[in-house]
Amino acid sequence: MDIKVIAFDADDTLWVNEPYFRQSEEAFCTLLEEYLPRHELERELLKVEIGNLGLYGYGIKGFVLSMIETAMAVTNNMISAKTIGDIIELGKQMLNQPLELLDGVEEVLRALKGRYRLVVATKGDLLDQERKLKKSNIANYFHHVEVMSEKDDANYLKLIKHLDIRPSELLMVGNSLKSDILPVLNVGGYAIHVPYHITWAHEEIEHSIDSGMFKSVECIRDILGFV
Amino acid sequence: MDIKVIAFDADDTLWVNEPYFRQSEEAFCTLLEEYLPRHELERELLKVEIGNLGLYGYGIKGFVLSMIETAMAVTNNMISAKTIGDIIELGKQMLNQPLELLDGVEEVLRALKGRYRLVVATKGDLLDQERKLKKSNIANYFHHVEVMSEKDDANYLKLIKHLDIRPSELLMVGNSLKSDILPVLNVGGYAIHVPYHITWAHEEIEHSIDSGMFKSVECIRDILGFV
Repeated sequence: MDIKVIAFDADDTLWVNEPYFRQSEEAFCTLLEEYLPRHELERELLKVEIGNLGLYGYGIKGFVLSMIETAMAVTNNMISAKTIGDIIELGKQMLNQPLELLDGVEEVLRALKGRYRLVVATKGDLLDQERKLKKSNIANYFHHVEVMSEKDDANYLKLIKHLDIRPSELLMVGNSLKSDILPVLNVGGYAIHVPYHITWAHEEIEHSIDSGMFKSVECIRDILGFV
Repeated sequence: MDIKVIAFDADDTLWVNEPYFRQSEEAFCTLLEEYLPRHELERELLKVEIGNLGLYGYGIKGFVLSMIETAMAVTNNMISAKTIGDIIELGKQMLNQPLELLDGVEEVLRALKGRYRLVVATKGDLLDQERKLKKSNIANYFHHVEVMSEKDDANYLKLIKHLDIRPSELLMVGNSLKSDILPVLNVGGYAIHVPYHITWAHEEIEHSIDSGMFKSVECIRDILGFV
């Protein structure tokens, strides 16, 4: 192993993210509970979100627009402007959410800093991710932040080219097998999976990985045993 | 002059953008014409947009959310879900808009390619800008695309550091004095202003610039006279 760059996913790897989406989704279901039961609403919302992903990409603003669209569809346009205002407010609360680092993150970054070039490789909204990094107080550990529109093979190859390294000099650490692990292994990099207790349905995959360039650990501190 | 990198703004410098926002704004005013006259609606919308800029940043999704918020405010929540659906549809049409290159752009890029490192330095939504670059068929002229959350002094310094050049080795070309010219001159780079016939009110400034590192030209072809 001749790793030069360690790239960290951000949401649910460095800091809490998915639980805030779940909270907003719950509040959304409560707003509309007179129209549809929760599990049906969640299914409809996921369908609209995935349908809009190609157009809106990842992030809170697209999520809010999809919640509004879902609310109109399931109420047959009977939704009140007041409720739509409540949905927009949910989004603003998410954008203003305080930042909560995950356990062990700063300790790990401190141990790795100076030994490797550390970067953040995340998807979602550029401004929102920059804001979260600023709030996190860990920006100084990182060489820079890469915000990717999609975490696929092509974009990881671009990242590797941009970092001016060979694929096998990259180690990616993240919580999503689909976005952080599989595409990195595909292009010849190393990957460590640090699972998070909840995962967005769209990121869930059934996949068993058998590769010498892959490890799965229980918490982020465990990566120190491998680098 | 020892310029190594020429950075181009994208919207209204390489391709048409602001007219699409104006068209949507007009359609928005038509949807709400029974509530408020056009000039008052435009003023309200601009106020809401600027109020949300810190939270939403630039781009179409934030614009749509601000249109919905404005519609609720000016109708005292009397707006129908149907009209909100129409506003969301306006945003989707903008995201799906065909791309129209501005006159002379490809000719200029062809002339400069190989002599300078060419990059795109734009703000707005990452996915949307990537999509537009792809549609434009000029991606191959550029070393890469920098999407910035805000075009201010600090972010231009970051860009210069990232490009691994001295400030005076950068030439920025763009249509916004506020975003493309003044901050670049502030940090010690060269800047050429190529005005576009319409400018978003938030980008308008009153400023006369007297600097040996600045030029204003009539059309993008004219920059070939200076490099």
